[in-house]
Amino acid sequence: MADINSKFEIGVTTGPIRGSKKIHVGPLKVAMRQINLEPSSGEAPVNVYDASGPYTDPDTLIDISAGLAELRRPWQLARGDIEQVTQREVKPEDNGQLGPDRSGGVPAFPNVRKTVWKAKPGANLSQMHYARQGVITPEMEYVATRENLGREMLAEYIRDGHDFGAEIPDYVTPEFVRSEVARGRAIIPSNVNHPECEPMAIGRNFLVKINANIGNSAVASDVASEVDKMVWSIRWGADTVMDLSTGRNIHDTREWIVRNSPVPIGTVPIYQALEKVGGVAEDLTWEVFRDTLIEQAEQGVDYFTIHAGVRLPYVPLAAKRVTGIVSRGGSIMAKWCLAHHKESFLYERFDEITEIMKAYDIAYSLGDGLRPGSIADANDEAQFAELYTLGELTKRAWEQDVQVMIEGPGHVPMHKIKANMDKQLEACGEAPFYTLGPLVTDIAPGYDHITSGIGAAMIGWFGTAMLCYVTPKEHLGLPDRDDVKVGVVTYKLAAHAADLAKGHPAAQVRDNALSKARFEFRWRDQFNLSLDPDTAEQFHDQTLPAEGAKTAHFCSMCGPKFCSMKISQEVREFAAKQNAEIDSFIAAEDGTVDAEAGMAEMSEVFKEKGSEIYLPAAE
Amino acid sequence: MADINSKFEIGVTTGPIRGSKKIHVGPLKVAMRQINLEPSSGEAPVNVYDASGPYTDPDTLIDISAGLAELRRPWQLARGDIEQVTQREVKPEDNGQLGPDRSGGVPAFPNVRKTVWKAKPGANLSQMHYARQGVITPEMEYVATRENLGREMLAEYIRDGHDFGAEIPDYVTPEFVRSEVARGRAIIPSNVNHPECEPMAIGRNFLVKINANIGNSAVASDVASEVDKMVWSIRWGADTVMDLSTGRNIHDTREWIVRNSPVPIGTVPIYQALEKVGGVAEDLTWEVFRDTLIEQAEQGVDYFTIHAGVRLPYVPLAAKRVTGIVSRGGSIMAKWCLAHHKESFLYERFDEITEIMKAYDIAYSLGDGLRPGSIADANDEAQFAELYTLGELTKRAWEQDVQVMIEGPGHVPMHKIKANMDKQLEACGEAPFYTLGPLVTDIAPGYDHITSGIGAAMIGWFGTAMLCYVTPKEHLGLPDRDDVKVGVVTYKLAAHAADLAKGHPAAQVRDNALSKARFEFRWRDQFNLSLDPDTAEQFHDQTLPAEGAKTAHFCSMCGPKFCSMKISQEVREFAAKQNAEIDSFIAAEDGTVDAEAGMAEMSEVFKEKGSEIYLPAAE
Repeated sequence: MADINSKFEIGVTTGPIRGSKKIHVGPLKVAMRQINLEPSSGEAPVNVYDASGPYTDPDTLIDISAGLAELRRPWQLARGDIEQVTQREVKPEDNGQLGPDRSGGVPAFPNVRKTVWKAKPGANLSQMHYARQGVITPEMEYVATRENLGREMLAEYIRDGHDFGAEIPDYVTPEFVRSEVARGRAIIPSNVNHPECEPMAIGRNFLVKINANIGNSAVASDVASEVDKMVWSIRWGADTVMDLSTGRNIHDTREWIVRNSPVPIGTVPIYQALEKVGGVAEDLTWEVFRDTLIEQAEQGVDYFTIHAGVRLPYVPLAAKRVTGIVSRGGSIMAKWCLAHHKESFLYERFDEITEIMKAYDIAYSLGDGLRPGSIADANDEAQFAELYTLGELTKRAWEQDVQVMIEGPGHVPMHKIKANMDKQLEACGEAPFYTLGPLVTDIAPGYDHITSGIGAAMIGWFGTAMLCYVTPKEHLGLPDRDDVKVGVVTYKLAAHAADLAKGHPAAQVRDNALSKARFEFRWRDQFNLSLDPDTAEQFHDQTLPAEGAKTAHFCSMCGPKFCSMKISQEVREFAAKQNAEIDSFIAAEDGTVDAEAGMAEMSEVFKEKGSEIYLPAAE
Repeated sequence: MADINSKFEIGVTTGPIRGSKKIHVGPLKVAMRQINLEPSSGEAPVNVYDASGPYTDPDTLIDISAGLAELRRPWQLARGDIEQVTQREVKPEDNGQLGPDRSGGVPAFPNVRKTVWKAKPGANLSQMHYARQGVITPEMEYVATRENLGREMLAEYIRDGHDFGAEIPDYVTPEFVRSEVARGRAIIPSNVNHPECEPMAIGRNFLVKINANIGNSAVASDVASEVDKMVWSIRWGADTVMDLSTGRNIHDTREWIVRNSPVPIGTVPIYQALEKVGGVAEDLTWEVFRDTLIEQAEQGVDYFTIHAGVRLPYVPLAAKRVTGIVSRGGSIMAKWCLAHHKESFLYERFDEITEIMKAYDIAYSLGDGLRPGSIADANDEAQFAELYTLGELTKRAWEQDVQVMIEGPGHVPMHKIKANMDKQLEACGEAPFYTLGPLVTDIAPGYDHITSGIGAAMIGWFGTAMLCYVTPKEHLGLPDRDDVKVGVVTYKLAAHAADLAKGHPAAQVRDNALSKARFEFRWRDQFNLSLDPDTAEQFHDQTLPAEGAKTAHFCSMCGPKFCSMKISQEVREFAAKQNAEIDSFIAAEDGTVDAEAGMAEMSEVFKEKGSEIYLPAAE
């Protein structure tokens, strides 16, 4: 299906990523992407982690109006702890139809379920709850297979890296996944009403994940482009997607997204709650908020950002800042607190929220409402006061076995990044950290995917479990499709750089395969092994478009004569053929053999071979 | 002058950068760029470092065929240690007209000097030599003014950062510049035959600099586009430019570039020497190389990359690698060494090369011919063996008072970056480090400006003095104009992030000014303060093109209702007006006052004000 963008037909990009095919591994048929290399190279195929879902599988029929297959439903039913309930009726205000400017226009998702699922009375559906009871769920098994990607190829590699105290195993077993979830160090977001989701883990001892934000706003965007962006972002590697819609038709937009998403969906429920009270922060009530949580829980949202750490006493601390409060949720709650001069209802009702979370297995993403919005405000009193409150709330959620991750900054210069990670680990008991960037300078709007990619790679190395992407449009406008792709690829490379530096055993396989292909002038393999094969090939072809150039032993940067790779291969081949002589030469250099004699001898050997280092393979 | 691209007319981009004007500071008229902010804001203008030369000065007439004015000539003459010599005659092979495919076609630079300058017999023109004699040159004074940029604005800022042992002063004096040059910790590349150059310093205790590579290759590019790229790259902030041409017309292309460049020009002379011997590495001789050095010295090249550290015994070490030798110069020398089975003539003739360098004041950029070309090869034996040889050569150059910087990797995962900096400092006596990237992963061709920007920011923080840019085309093709800009801006932001993290006193001024503009919805100021005002404005306008949106108190990301900045300003204004009450409220939270009573009281105050936090300024 091509990219169609109309009100009544929603088009998304399907088909395999160039040079790859979808494979399904093990009894749970865990989806992976296999990159096959040129047969003549003798290189084994490279399997890579694949968040793209059925959209890249040519054997699956995609029907956006029907939604994806319900992978996890049999597992849920087998546990015997859920029951069907009648879905909360959709109200006009769910789609923001309160005022004259809210005209609807988004078609309702045609295949809406009339009944939804939740925990039987007294049951707790959280993966953490199962884990703490010693149960290894199919979700955990799926994660184990998924994370093990390529580790069997690694016998030859020496493990390398600096992990700052992470405990990454050589091989991920289902029991390891269970134990990480049980102790709160990893989460598997998995709302019972999102059975379409392929299980994935967010935790310091797993591959670093990335999130892509999509969503309309009151001034731009529509449902078709948001669904398209969701599919597009997972195609390039987004591990979770947050729907941050704040405009009209929030409910219907979300239904389209969740039903078609193979990755966990996160939201910030306070956005919709605010719409329901006409945008007046001080009119927010616990009842409206609670109703919104139920509405979204029944739709299948997998994690909620809850800004319960923005407490009343912290608000004046933030008022002194260069950029005040830059979190939307944080500023809404700050305004509410100040208006009512009461403690935040999110903080006061936290245990009641947790009750709801566990009935669906929704994970907390405890929001950093007081994150710094500029270098000047980084690591200040307001920020860390909130972080320690988030630590307190983590423990309260864990008392009910509810999964938690913690959102982090924001804008932080490089020398202050590590302290964020260290304090988060200390305050929040190693609950997964989920950071936005951080941006390491404020002076590059238009390039904030890069300013933040620098901070993201670093904090990912230090221990952050999931990196929230930033697109080139950050601070300037709503990202379009191209921005989404650039943001996702930038964050994939940052996450991968973090995995490499942490010494994740599966990380370096792909780097080595690509570098080897590069050295051997296997251009197509180089493209296919890259994070974005389309762009790599397009860039190559801009200067050397001829088909023959893709097998040429040079490129447009240096041309044939100056190609260091080519010369280097000649050196290597010569060295290989003269292995004994090289050894004796090194011995000569060491002083064990007469050096001058050794050199003269080698020179003779070289001249005998015709003074050409590149010797034909047939020789 | 617009962008013209013909054989006989060379066009470049001129005119001020949006929102900026050129200013000239102090008796030496040091060029800077001043960004004026909206008068209503009451904010002082922000002065920024400006490498763009006269091209951005509307008061200067640009004539590419005549070249730039000779800023430094009077200073050189005043020192009384130079003499005119007749320029070495240009030979056909200087422009590569050896074979049938070398047809020329580049017009010679019309304004070539017939006489050039060099040191009087026995004199040493090196800035290091003057510095060691206690002389403060105008070049050093120029640098001091240039580096001090904005420091007078900093009284209010608390110095912050982690500098890993750098010794960055609060204020840069000419004497400080002299002392840094004298001890080899900074260089001021300044060939006597490049008097058009505006002096700049490369050193760990100065602002982090960036270099842009340009140059044609045998399969692409022409002189007009290379001159245009030079001017274009300095417009966006390149502090030096390397001409890495390897195709035809190398001599003439370089003449056009040097005569029109206000920044130091670097080259890799072995590239041209190789062209002169028909591309056969083993045919290289000291005589051809020496002649090339003289040719380029007389043209005014400010620093030479010399791969004198690629010693014969290191070649077999590199042969075992995943990607062998990836430096062009390194592979050429490796091939020469292996073919002749002799020690490198660059190593053996090093002191003779140094004699040439000091007669023109050309700085060494000691090339890292054995830098790793993949993650797998990072920090290996070959790399560090060469680095320690570069340290030995540094000391030999310093014996003749010749300026030196050291080139560094390459491809290095994050956890191995710091060791590169530490070993360089140790081996090379704090001679400035000049690194390419490093790239922190191999898997993102098409995005290697970002994979390398991550490493560049980090190694810049650790102490690297100059970062060699990488463009999105790296590994794939020759960069075009757009690639050059993206590469430069990416590296400017990385260098700036490094300055911030090191705690450079002048760094945070611009971040704070931009963040304040952002918070106050001064959109134009935000654009103008950014590294790339054109792109920032264009991105903003893609979603909200109306002129009114540039004064709107919201943007397309969140729309008016969800703007955290707007809500936050409301919170701040309320807090400011109720200062006493806020303080008593905090006291209440501390437990010193009855909390419930305090909250109720504040709520009343709020309601009295009409339940709106945003209070009109007229009240």
